[in-house]
Amino acid sequence: MEKAQKHIVIIGAGFAGIYAARNLARMNKDFRITLVDRHNYHLFQPLLYQVAMGHLSPESIAYPIRAIFSGYKNVSVTKGIVSGIDLEAGTAQMRNQTLHYDELIVATGVKPNYFGHNEWERYAPGIKTIQDALYMRLRIYNIFEMAERNKALKDEAPPLNFVVIGGGPAGVELSGALAELSRKVLKKDFRHIRPDKARIYLVEALDHILGGFPPELEKSALKSLARLGVEVKTGHRVTDIRGDRVILQSPEGEKVIESQAVLWTAGVQASYSRELFPQADQLEFDRMGRIKVNPDLSVPGYENVYVAGDLAFVPGEDGRPLPGVASVAIQEGAYAARAIMERHGGRKARPFRFFSKGRMAVIGRNAAVVELGPLKMCGFPAWLIWVFIHIAYLISFQNRLTVMLNWAWYYFRQKVSARIVFGCEDKDINHPVPKCPE
Amino acid sequence: MEKAQKHIVIIGAGFAGIYAARNLARMNKDFRITLVDRHNYHLFQPLLYQVAMGHLSPESIAYPIRAIFSGYKNVSVTKGIVSGIDLEAGTAQMRNQTLHYDELIVATGVKPNYFGHNEWERYAPGIKTIQDALYMRLRIYNIFEMAERNKALKDEAPPLNFVVIGGGPAGVELSGALAELSRKVLKKDFRHIRPDKARIYLVEALDHILGGFPPELEKSALKSLARLGVEVKTGHRVTDIRGDRVILQSPEGEKVIESQAVLWTAGVQASYSRELFPQADQLEFDRMGRIKVNPDLSVPGYENVYVAGDLAFVPGEDGRPLPGVASVAIQEGAYAARAIMERHGGRKARPFRFFSKGRMAVIGRNAAVVELGPLKMCGFPAWLIWVFIHIAYLISFQNRLTVMLNWAWYYFRQKVSARIVFGCEDKDINHPVPKCPE
Repeated sequence: MEKAQKHIVIIGAGFAGIYAARNLARMNKDFRITLVDRHNYHLFQPLLYQVAMGHLSPESIAYPIRAIFSGYKNVSVTKGIVSGIDLEAGTAQMRNQTLHYDELIVATGVKPNYFGHNEWERYAPGIKTIQDALYMRLRIYNIFEMAERNKALKDEAPPLNFVVIGGGPAGVELSGALAELSRKVLKKDFRHIRPDKARIYLVEALDHILGGFPPELEKSALKSLARLGVEVKTGHRVTDIRGDRVILQSPEGEKVIESQAVLWTAGVQASYSRELFPQADQLEFDRMGRIKVNPDLSVPGYENVYVAGDLAFVPGEDGRPLPGVASVAIQEGAYAARAIMERHGGRKARPFRFFSKGRMAVIGRNAAVVELGPLKMCGFPAWLIWVFIHIAYLISFQNRLTVMLNWAWYYFRQKVSARIVFGCEDKDINHPVPKCPE
Repeated sequence: MEKAQKHIVIIGAGFAGIYAARNLARMNKDFRITLVDRHNYHLFQPLLYQVAMGHLSPESIAYPIRAIFSGYKNVSVTKGIVSGIDLEAGTAQMRNQTLHYDELIVATGVKPNYFGHNEWERYAPGIKTIQDALYMRLRIYNIFEMAERNKALKDEAPPLNFVVIGGGPAGVELSGALAELSRKVLKKDFRHIRPDKARIYLVEALDHILGGFPPELEKSALKSLARLGVEVKTGHRVTDIRGDRVILQSPEGEKVIESQAVLWTAGVQASYSRELFPQADQLEFDRMGRIKVNPDLSVPGYENVYVAGDLAFVPGEDGRPLPGVASVAIQEGAYAARAIMERHGGRKARPFRFFSKGRMAVIGRNAAVVELGPLKMCGFPAWLIWVFIHIAYLISFQNRLTVMLNWAWYYFRQKVSARIVFGCEDKDINHPVPKCPE
């Protein structure tokens, strides 16, 4: 009998998991690689907000994991949920199955963080999964339906207020997209209400948006948002979300915004971390539940266990943790693959170092802010770069075509055909829509 | 004060409702038209099975109703459910709203019919809504996932059997598509099972498939199905579906097929009909719950109430009821609009007459059977006609582009990117997936 192949288990098929698996499969054909994910698709999360808006279909930004690896005979894909990892035994536990690993890469990502107020989730959905995006889509469109009906019936309707919480790139993108949706796409679709009169608030607790971006780009973003009619409330902290009211605290006092569409982008936390390592006392987590790793992304005490992607707490050169963006995840996934190769060859990998390619946020149909090394851009040229990079990182050619087609259509016609609402149908649009059971 | 406009209420935004509303809106700008649907989109049902297969996204065959009518100022769209119609009072009751109509068109369509065995629905989903299609998609793909996992774990897996019940065009299309999915698309995606060895059964109680088609086309369809490896069981009646077994009765005796993927296309029934008309004793229904109408599609006793589309029981020239296909619904919807116009002008419309443009069914990637008047075609030319007609009837240009792109991609690459599975996630793929609450 030949020597057993090295078995590498990768948990999570986001950017980190996909790039780790692909690189490992290419580097050594003798590795046996098992990639586990609860879904059967890899999801391009950066465009998820466009699914929520109804611009794109979920299918256009997701791609079957099995199809990505159909040409790699040494990669085996398993759909399922890992409930716990036994670092001593070297096993990952699934419902009916125990995976024995020689090397492990954990890349299960993050989910919305309500900072102790999980009761807000019901009224203020976040957006990290397709389910989330479709739920958010349902909420957004139902506000208009509800207002139209009430206006027709009683000649009065609750104000068309949207509140986006969190002034990072996600919040900026979401509020910009909401403004375009109401001001342009839906303008002619209603008979009793005026969607273009909707008020869109972007709420941020700090006194600036786009933290980490250079001040001149923040300024440009603020200008673009103002042009779209987004009302930016910096220095406003959310103290409660209840039913159709958001309560904000600012130095000037309390402010109440009546809204049935509150969208949450204010923070994330690890999807699993402590739960995944029940016996691991020596692991350290940050306050978001991310796992603190060694310079080679392995966890303290277990050099064959790596954490990559949003789940990993990795300090950047300035000492602050690297942001939860695709480029970081891709580089960490690829690095973990390389580190395993090095160890397999008896060497030690040099510490992980992130090469920043810049950061960006898009604001509506043709403005963006982009920082690429020393280059700072805004407006239309920045938007073109944003489009190019996002198309380039979509995993399949067909996804690229579909998304480009949709964007071209939207750009020239300002029509959005995908704005259909499905998922769990609401029986009564006058009440908050229940979330699909997961 | 000017004379009140005539108010026309249309229930259901399928083909019948859409064409009725559009024609009415064009013919008389003074009519006030209210179009009610429980969804916010018009759905191109003939391609729903491709959504179930994972070939198309729901968004690519659905289009927002409001967008269809955004240019028609006299059409008002309402999202909601009509729970009952009071023919005497001339009202349609919604949850928080009563619609008073002068003229009414009811076109609420059909849903799967289990002929008294609703308990089968759990194991044998039908396909009439996007929810249905996504649920069917989830079931189909999970069978492969389940088999792959069990095979890897225990080196044994339940047989990969698919059973399509109902030998009409829908069943033929579904079984052909399933065969292509397993034999071509998924062939290389698994490591432990052989999807191309899946067995696909097409079960029909009568002794022939494609009832109503000329015998030579049935023969051609049988040949195409055989080439794809579909096992056609005519003369087999379903007597029970339970868990993972289908029990069939044929002249040769009982046959049990073990299958966790049973798909139902054997019959339909009215979505609503008796429930919609609680006090209407004089209405007659057929055994599928369809409403028997006058020659002008109005209901007996109420000349201002029309029924159109699949819900209407309308005898064709041969005395048999017209089939539930798009062309019938379109013509009935357009006719109802014309009949209302005529009555408005003090005239009486000539009885409805269906002009058959033919019938067709597609079998896999490049075969179809088509009957167009005296013309009977099969194979590739028939497939081209099928493609052309289906593209032509998609309601928006963007839908057409998206679907064509997907088909071209599929045709040349035999890749299907949309085969992602979402909706209610299953916690345990070894048990039947629960259906989303509706």
